Amino acid sequence: MSDPSLAEDPNVTPEELQLATRNHGMPLEGLRYDVTPAGMHYLLIHFDVPETRSEAWRLTVDGRVRSALGLGLRELQALEVVTRRVTLECAGNGRARLTPRPLSQPWLVEAVGNAEWTGTPLAPILREAGLEDDVVDLVFTGADHGVQGGEEQDYQRSLSVADAMQPDVMLAWAMNGQPLLPQHGAPLRLLVPGWYGMTSVKWLTRIEAVPDRFEGFQMLAYRRRDHADDEGIDVTRIFPRSLMIPPGFPDFFTRTRTVDAGRVELRGRAWSGRGRIIRVDVSTDGGTSWRAATLGEQPTPTEWVPWEVEWDAVPGEHELVVRAADDAGNVQPIEQSWNHHGLENNAVQRVPVIVRPGP
Amino acid sequence: MSDPSLAEDPNVTPEELQLATRNHGMPLEGLRYDVTPAGMHYLLIHFDVPETRSEAWRLTVDGRVRSALGLGLRELQALEVVTRRVTLECAGNGRARLTPRPLSQPWLVEAVGNAEWTGTPLAPILREAGLEDDVVDLVFTGADHGVQGGEEQDYQRSLSVADAMQPDVMLAWAMNGQPLLPQHGAPLRLLVPGWYGMTSVKWLTRIEAVPDRFEGFQMLAYRRRDHADDEGIDVTRIFPRSLMIPPGFPDFFTRTRTVDAGRVELRGRAWSGRGRIIRVDVSTDGGTSWRAATLGEQPTPTEWVPWEVEWDAVPGEHELVVRAADDAGNVQPIEQSWNHHGLENNAVQRVPVIVRPGP
Repeated sequence: MSDPSLAEDPNVTPEELQLATRNHGMPLEGLRYDVTPAGMHYLLIHFDVPETRSEAWRLTVDGRVRSALGLGLRELQALEVVTRRVTLECAGNGRARLTPRPLSQPWLVEAVGNAEWTGTPLAPILREAGLEDDVVDLVFTGADHGVQGGEEQDYQRSLSVADAMQPDVMLAWAMNGQPLLPQHGAPLRLLVPGWYGMTSVKWLTRIEAVPDRFEGFQMLAYRRRDHADDEGIDVTRIFPRSLMIPPGFPDFFTRTRTVDAGRVELRGRAWSGRGRIIRVDVSTDGGTSWRAATLGEQPTPTEWVPWEVEWDAVPGEHELVVRAADDAGNVQPIEQSWNHHGLENNAVQRVPVIVRPGP
Repeated sequence: MSDPSLAEDPNVTPEELQLATRNHGMPLEGLRYDVTPAGMHYLLIHFDVPETRSEAWRLTVDGRVRSALGLGLRELQALEVVTRRVTLECAGNGRARLTPRPLSQPWLVEAVGNAEWTGTPLAPILREAGLEDDVVDLVFTGADHGVQGGEEQDYQRSLSVADAMQPDVMLAWAMNGQPLLPQHGAPLRLLVPGWYGMTSVKWLTRIEAVPDRFEGFQMLAYRRRDHADDEGIDVTRIFPRSLMIPPGFPDFFTRTRTVDAGRVELRGRAWSGRGRIIRVDVSTDGGTSWRAATLGEQPTPTEWVPWEVEWDAVPGEHELVVRAADDAGNVQPIEQSWNHHGLENNAVQRVPVIVRPGP
């Protein structure tokens, strides 16, 4: 079982730095794009990007099915083609803001992206294979291989039959109109809208139908546990979060923002995998008072919602805070509760800014 | 003047982490690609990615010229079109391996990429503008704006007339056959082959011909200084470096590599902005003994050279080391010398691996 060590020191260990120089978040000014440009989308790769060749790629569908399938990329592309914008977020987003800090990929708040994915729906493929009546889970295996928590493994995650058969679950071979980049799962990946990113298995080689609940390493690693021995709760759908484009301009090293006094349009995006975003509130005084932002239209049901609010900025130091709520009753917490793996950390974003007299 | 603080603690500060989650290196398995896929190429952005619109973009060429120019993207694209592969590396690559560590972007060794850039040569544009006889430097201004070292600034770097007129210096609007991504300088950037990346100004808005040596902030920041008060030496062309694709598979957190015993093909790339790569040596015993790797052909003069060497791996712990030399007499140092800003840190790469009995 994955059992990360905890660090009290706010400074980040060399091991965390190794992960942070490989994986990366979306710079927050990237929130200005409806569709996140390739390469700005967040990326978390557990092991290495595997070497793959699309010509030779085969997806196997087997296990408790009536007819096992072996599908090449061209055969998949001859099936129904769908294009869908999906906001993906890492389940560990926000982890580096916890104290003590679970030692893993040290995300602040930027592990998100909204891309346009093209592929084919999964459900018809499962129907063609014909799941036996006793099937409980579908196990998705990626070509990425390594060791985690002392266990050598191919990256594997599962979905229940009901979740796997959802009509928006797809196998994707293109992102933003281009063939998948190697680091995003080329040539084929699973895409499960609304769920945290660990579910959308990259470099997908196999779907196995199994008669028992799958309890592989990555299923146990992505559970929200109060402490190391807590059985915990599965991490599944994305809790609401809102992020703003930090206004003004940054200091290179501290990233402190300077804003000119006067009317400032604060803008950002909000999303939830658990319901529709119904409210985004913005505070410009560190959370003492709040104003409702104006929500834009959500272009499609599986992507983020733009929002904006005007701020009459007066000189001085201010802390901007933003908080989203969905129609399932989920609201971003003001203070971050703690859990052992640092998952689902969706506390509000705080952006300190210095307002200077207008030019 | 930029004067980074120094840290003795090997753990990385929250400010460095903020930079590491925005900027990113090339995962070393990316060395397997002749041309680095978009989004895997290293990225260092001092301030924010600016919001730009290619339709409205104008490049101004002015200052000490006989006829100032204002060029839109279409006008530039009607000029001579060249496509060139260029290996770019950040001048601060390797900084996080220094003790004490200059506080800035905390690179390990992965701040590199080799892309295929399309644009137009700079020299004919400068000839069309007509440089006055007293011009000393060309100052290149980007649209990125912020504060560094207490100084508010647009990002600016200069080249001497002789360096700017080199035939391989270009203004680029495409990368790997696609319009520039926002984070790589869309819609237009400077590209100076052989030089560290800070010279290749992104989001290029202006080229000004000036009669004096330009000593803007980013010129002083990129000097190799022995200590804070040292006048230092300009950082210009890339010193040789070689990196290998770490063999075997990684541990998620420690990134320790496991390799099966037997014949292992070690592969990588080497580059220098100061001469041709003439030698890559590989050690599998921590630097005690060395073997020459076989160099592949360098496809074009401005990009990296592939190399490979076979290793008969026997069970146990090993440290792989790789070292490149160019025909100008530059060799990667075994131990890293120190400098105040952490620039030109091209000491050899070390890759610890555990070899287990073959399967």
